[in-house]
Amino acid sequence: MGIIPASHRDLLEARVATFATVGVDGYPQLSEVWFLAEDDTIRLSLNSARQKTRNIIRHPACTLFILDLANTYRYLELRADALVEPDNDYRLADKVGAKYDSDLRAHDQPGQSRVVVTLHPHKVNAVNMGG
Amino acid sequence: MGIIPASHRDLLEARVATFATVGVDGYPQLSEVWFLAEDDTIRLSLNSARQKTRNIIRHPACTLFILDLANTYRYLELRADALVEPDNDYRLADKVGAKYDSDLRAHDQPGQSRVVVTLHPHKVNAVNMGG
Repeated sequence: MGIIPASHRDLLEARVATFATVGVDGYPQLSEVWFLAEDDTIRLSLNSARQKTRNIIRHPACTLFILDLANTYRYLELRADALVEPDNDYRLADKVGAKYDSDLRAHDQPGQSRVVVTLHPHKVNAVNMGG
Repeated sequence: MGIIPASHRDLLEARVATFATVGVDGYPQLSEVWFLAEDDTIRLSLNSARQKTRNIIRHPACTLFILDLANTYRYLELRADALVEPDNDYRLADKVGAKYDSDLRAHDQPGQSRVVVTLHPHKVNAVNMGG
């Protein structure tokens, strides 16, 4: 299990992260996501219809990248195999919504569902190029 | 050829971008990079010994992600096949160094070399979740 060092743990409190998956065409797909961090576990609430969700179901190897917006030489790169589970009752979605003061149901169309994406990073790169 | 829309062209003047490659293990590798943009062409100056350089030589499919640091709901995702060429005389490296007021030679060890990585994005996602 990757250990996120003390020098970079503050980044777990960032508002957003960049989530990278790999598409069926072999290109990385990157998007900005909301997340919840608890110890070294990261959880995302994704709509099941999204390309990134389909990507990790097919290819679980993914990376979460948390940039220090105030010092872009400093960041955390977390590699993990995504665990994707249903969140039909919006339990995690409502926790994420509480953090971001948003109703995630409003982001979903009829017939779509939510999944919990759990990341237990097994490789952690804590970078500070700024010295 | 992808066309970067007017709404997001200012992001080509950003100081840094997130460069995503795919490793031999199938995980996305993400790091923050300097870049030069000229029209819709992006160039990076990479040290030949870096993991990301080795990744794109093996697997050219890559993605450059430029985040609006002042509004993280707004970003540009550029997918391209990296073209990797030698830069033994540091021609591009010196242009990048001039932009960033840095001598890129100082980043390289004896025996290492520089490459020019050219990205002609063929897919552009210009995102603004903020409305």
